[in-house]
Amino acid sequence: MTEWYDAGRETVYLNESNNTLAMIDQTKLPYELKTLELKGIKDIWDAIYLLKVRGAPAIGVAAAIGIYVVSLSVNTSDRDEFDRRFKENKEYLNSARPTAVNLSWALNRMDAVLTDNPVLPVPDLLQRLRDEALRIKAEDTEMCLKIGENALSLLKKGSRLLTHCNAGQLATTKYGTATAAMYLGHERGYDLHIYCDETRPLLQGARLTAYELMAAGMDVTLCCDNMVASLMRQGMIDAVLVGCDRVAANGDVANKIGTSVVATVAKRYNVPFYVCGPTSTIDPMTKTGNDIVIEQRPAEEVTEMWYERRMAPEGVKVYNPAFDITDNELITAIITERGIYRAPYDF
Amino acid sequence: MTEWYDAGRETVYLNESNNTLAMIDQTKLPYELKTLELKGIKDIWDAIYLLKVRGAPAIGVAAAIGIYVVSLSVNTSDRDEFDRRFKENKEYLNSARPTAVNLSWALNRMDAVLTDNPVLPVPDLLQRLRDEALRIKAEDTEMCLKIGENALSLLKKGSRLLTHCNAGQLATTKYGTATAAMYLGHERGYDLHIYCDETRPLLQGARLTAYELMAAGMDVTLCCDNMVASLMRQGMIDAVLVGCDRVAANGDVANKIGTSVVATVAKRYNVPFYVCGPTSTIDPMTKTGNDIVIEQRPAEEVTEMWYERRMAPEGVKVYNPAFDITDNELITAIITERGIYRAPYDF
Repeated sequence: MTEWYDAGRETVYLNESNNTLAMIDQTKLPYELKTLELKGIKDIWDAIYLLKVRGAPAIGVAAAIGIYVVSLSVNTSDRDEFDRRFKENKEYLNSARPTAVNLSWALNRMDAVLTDNPVLPVPDLLQRLRDEALRIKAEDTEMCLKIGENALSLLKKGSRLLTHCNAGQLATTKYGTATAAMYLGHERGYDLHIYCDETRPLLQGARLTAYELMAAGMDVTLCCDNMVASLMRQGMIDAVLVGCDRVAANGDVANKIGTSVVATVAKRYNVPFYVCGPTSTIDPMTKTGNDIVIEQRPAEEVTEMWYERRMAPEGVKVYNPAFDITDNELITAIITERGIYRAPYDF
Repeated sequence: MTEWYDAGRETVYLNESNNTLAMIDQTKLPYELKTLELKGIKDIWDAIYLLKVRGAPAIGVAAAIGIYVVSLSVNTSDRDEFDRRFKENKEYLNSARPTAVNLSWALNRMDAVLTDNPVLPVPDLLQRLRDEALRIKAEDTEMCLKIGENALSLLKKGSRLLTHCNAGQLATTKYGTATAAMYLGHERGYDLHIYCDETRPLLQGARLTAYELMAAGMDVTLCCDNMVASLMRQGMIDAVLVGCDRVAANGDVANKIGTSVVATVAKRYNVPFYVCGPTSTIDPMTKTGNDIVIEQRPAEEVTEMWYERRMAPEGVKVYNPAFDITDNELITAIITERGIYRAPYDF
């Protein structure tokens, strides 16, 4: 691990000098800071599938820029032919992570450019696709900024903040969701102290959040997931900020496994627990957390991970859910780009 | 990992065929099951210092058998000379883990054999030392058995039990403390289902508890520390059993880091939380948990552990306490060899 990430650098962007989809390869962090420049559709599909880009907002932006970049090499001036090839490429990219809502959402927005401009010549259409991809990206950054402003309004100077997993700049285009107030506060001299729990089994807190916040010059302390009660019992945490994968209509939150452990401990010690995410994460069709199906992941993530050496006996059964449900009563507020929501939730 | 531990085998014992201190090398588990046979004082000191034997009760027994074995090679029939050498050896062994109460407690019991028999010839004295070491070991096994009977009286057939860290057979001579009821219930057809959390950073749950309970033929499921709320929210745990390092007079408990996270989550979901340990763990001189000083351990346990590959950015600060304090109000009962204690505690 030799190079630190430049905090001004974006996670995923259009490299205009060579018309490539540029992204930090997150599977290499924090050992190596490598920027990929992708042009071919197979490479872009792989990057999404293999989690080189991850985090719902970042995946959406990668897909939008990706399909624009791929469209540039569709060598035809015939709109029917162009549109047919676009739809093929869209379907293919959409298959990389079928459960990621932002992936299909971003691809559908790009597709609407074709639908809305049925007779526009291909070169002009490409320009519109480029504009739309950059708009999706700019909107994401703007959304994060607004979440950050809203969250920062709840924080005091000198605050000691805990976060779980990575709902950071590396999961978005910039600022992150849970981390946005940390970036803004840091820029404005808030003297924040950030605690990241490591987030087993995949260690997004240790590998990604600690890395990106340190790269931005913040004061970062890492701990294991099971140390949060020790911290809070001693009054060492002023607020918890986390992201979210899905918010039910009643305010129950699905987020990375372990979120509800932190929320339960925070409730006991009267530490405010804030969930940060875009309005698009709120799913009014899901009534409560009990309606959310939780993905079980492979045992090897817990027993072996990417290490050579096994950490548990051969053949042991493993319980490894990707997410958990945090009951709405454990949540102090849900912070979106539109505002700060508190129970009873009426989004 | 090729060989499974025979559940009948003891963690630490006197090998009578060659008069050695025999112990399972716990630093090798679960990759390799290796029994050490130690005779030299330096080797015995190293085994305690390097955590080849660990767990307060097992350390005490290792020290008692160890000083007996070492005394056998003190080649003198002169009592003054013998006693002088014994005290030297005692001081040296006691320095291996100065904070482990059981270590000095066991060595003092062995020393009392000399004091109580001031004129006994050396060969007879050696016989008494052997008897005392075996008595200390037998008492430990008996204590674990009684804790197990007391704990089992609180459990139902078919129970799904969660434990944290290793308060198992590998931490004692046999049965363990938190695991004693599991061994007894298993022998008696209770059809128990055991969940072990992995216990970061040193993974005693994954490496030791899952291993020894599977070796005994139990149904074992491993999870990460941050998955306990997911399990309990779904009603998948009927009771939690943990060990303890020190119990304060008011019933606050110091135990492996993460214990109080499990206790907090258990309280929220009305899952009984039982602390198991010998009466000797109760320290009436310690009024509350706040009077217990918690050891901070090296950052590398979290950021590197025994892996080659680093898991966190270089230079990150780390919060890594060895223990945490579980407030008495989170504890359903404290179970010792003498009985089952509930708040308000009057031990």
